[in-house]
Amino acid sequence: MMTNTSLRPIRWTPEGLQILDQRALPLAQTWLHCETWPQVADAITQMAVRGAPAIGIVAAYGLAMAARQHGRGSALSAAFERFAQTRPTAVNLFWVLDRLRALLAAQPEAAPYELLLEEAHRIQEEDLQMCRAMGDHGATLLKPDAKLLTHCNTGSLATGGYGTALGVIRSAARMGGLRQVLACETRPYLQGARLTAWELAHDGLPVRVITDSMAGWFMAQGEVDAVLVGADRIGAHGDVANKIGTYALAVLARAHGIPFYVVAPTSTVDLEILSPEAIPIEQRPAQELTHFAGVRIVPEGVGVENPAFDVTPARLITAIITEHGALSAPFSEGLIQHVARAKNAGA
Amino acid sequence: MMTNTSLRPIRWTPEGLQILDQRALPLAQTWLHCETWPQVADAITQMAVRGAPAIGIVAAYGLAMAARQHGRGSALSAAFERFAQTRPTAVNLFWVLDRLRALLAAQPEAAPYELLLEEAHRIQEEDLQMCRAMGDHGATLLKPDAKLLTHCNTGSLATGGYGTALGVIRSAARMGGLRQVLACETRPYLQGARLTAWELAHDGLPVRVITDSMAGWFMAQGEVDAVLVGADRIGAHGDVANKIGTYALAVLARAHGIPFYVVAPTSTVDLEILSPEAIPIEQRPAQELTHFAGVRIVPEGVGVENPAFDVTPARLITAIITEHGALSAPFSEGLIQHVARAKNAGA
Repeated sequence: MMTNTSLRPIRWTPEGLQILDQRALPLAQTWLHCETWPQVADAITQMAVRGAPAIGIVAAYGLAMAARQHGRGSALSAAFERFAQTRPTAVNLFWVLDRLRALLAAQPEAAPYELLLEEAHRIQEEDLQMCRAMGDHGATLLKPDAKLLTHCNTGSLATGGYGTALGVIRSAARMGGLRQVLACETRPYLQGARLTAWELAHDGLPVRVITDSMAGWFMAQGEVDAVLVGADRIGAHGDVANKIGTYALAVLARAHGIPFYVVAPTSTVDLEILSPEAIPIEQRPAQELTHFAGVRIVPEGVGVENPAFDVTPARLITAIITEHGALSAPFSEGLIQHVARAKNAGA
Repeated sequence: MMTNTSLRPIRWTPEGLQILDQRALPLAQTWLHCETWPQVADAITQMAVRGAPAIGIVAAYGLAMAARQHGRGSALSAAFERFAQTRPTAVNLFWVLDRLRALLAAQPEAAPYELLLEEAHRIQEEDLQMCRAMGDHGATLLKPDAKLLTHCNTGSLATGGYGTALGVIRSAARMGGLRQVLACETRPYLQGARLTAWELAHDGLPVRVITDSMAGWFMAQGEVDAVLVGADRIGAHGDVANKIGTYALAVLARAHGIPFYVVAPTSTVDLEILSPEAIPIEQRPAQELTHFAGVRIVPEGVGVENPAFDVTPARLITAIITEHGALSAPFSEGLIQHVARAKNAGA
């Protein structure tokens, strides 16, 4: 096992930001070299990088690059606006934008590039530490030699390193042993088949890939002790927006008496969200469903639906695990406390 | 609408059997010309033709070709054996083999080729009539202007024509109106995206394709009034083997209070199956999951699971619709009656 050999898919260099292009995995490890901030914004929109925490980190570096080019002023504000429009559902992005704006306001005399670059480094490092904390908190909830199921990719590729739900899986492997991980392939973008399988195999962990449609059947066969997923946004009452398919997994887990865990840093919590319907759901381009590797799979003229996320209501969630520990229902009070602790820690 | 313009994907000619190659759809309408019976068996194994009733029909023509080549005797018996090994889960195939064996035994003096060819034509025509009957029975259960969800392909491509679950959808469109059909793409083989969407669009019916993982979310949004699926084998108590993902849809439908209908001819009923575990589940090659259009999507060295079917227990099924009408739980008595009626009708 090589659980300490963390992948580092986001690398800062003086020439710009290097991003491991997740669209090319697992066939090729291609690095995207972003020398300008609009290239960074495009990398987010076009999903060369994805995963809520990773999007936040990359946006922070992109804004440091914008500050280097433009200094303070309206062009930098426009860059903030551009990043705010890259992906609408994940809230870490907006949390990062607010944090950088507040920092610039608090230090009006500081050189903006150095200020934001330093903060980007700090956000990335903090995220890695938070993932390790979440991993260890979550692993204590699992039985030894556990059979786990996960969806999408929530690992090193999606975070500052180590991962959220995959962080729990990594900690479980270290602390209590791990029998098997079933990775749902996660249509249409195949983050599970392409990215999660690649990361876990890289760590020498026992992973098998299934289609999303098989998850319920393997639960019925006794092949799943717990389901672990990440989150793109968590509302004040514990409703969780995450990759499309998460909601169905939560319903299926409940029907089979299997615990369903959500693993995400408190920067994912949006206390302004008071109902599941209040979370904006990104609709992605039809082509992600109609074509695969350039080959058309849906007949010409037939429409598709492509919501990138769904919302799992709090009642289906066994626990939400943040860097400060595990919360069980009702979630509101605990989420408010965790957010307050995170703010104090950051102050 | 062109609901009467039935696709005819299985065509007999004096030169042999022509099969519309479902692997090439929807990109191309390629016909596979089978001039020998082993080519027909390969077409089944390699899924150029799939769908439980269609497999039975094609096997009947294949055995007529074997009788033409070999006459009666051990070589014909070997051909029966070879067809029995093409696909293990769908029971219509075995029903056809038994029917043809019984016919040969009952008419020991008859020329076997003409006998079996005539019977193959009869099986195909009967299947079309049964589909029309199922369609009309099923449509009476639906509310007007219904929003329906279906899985895999159960249409003209999978049967003698018209379809089972898709037959109900076709009848619903004719009888009560149809608001929308959501077709689950049906990984890994994409029968929903490639075949169901193509058939329904061909008929001018309102179809949209979703990933399998989206079904639960659209149920939660009120976008599904009923789920309609086919069956590959139905046990004596109403447990239903069908395309992988069917079980999860049944659990999700139950959780949302949505009726779940199984549509299949009585030739799908296997009264010898007394528990869900007794149905053999075909494991398909890993490559169906690991590759798409020749492109690897699961990293080298990572294992996959590929059960082609799952079993939905009777308790999750609202009604089973055969050519003799709709049955509700408990199913045993009704299934026995329908099978007896089918035997009498065939006698």
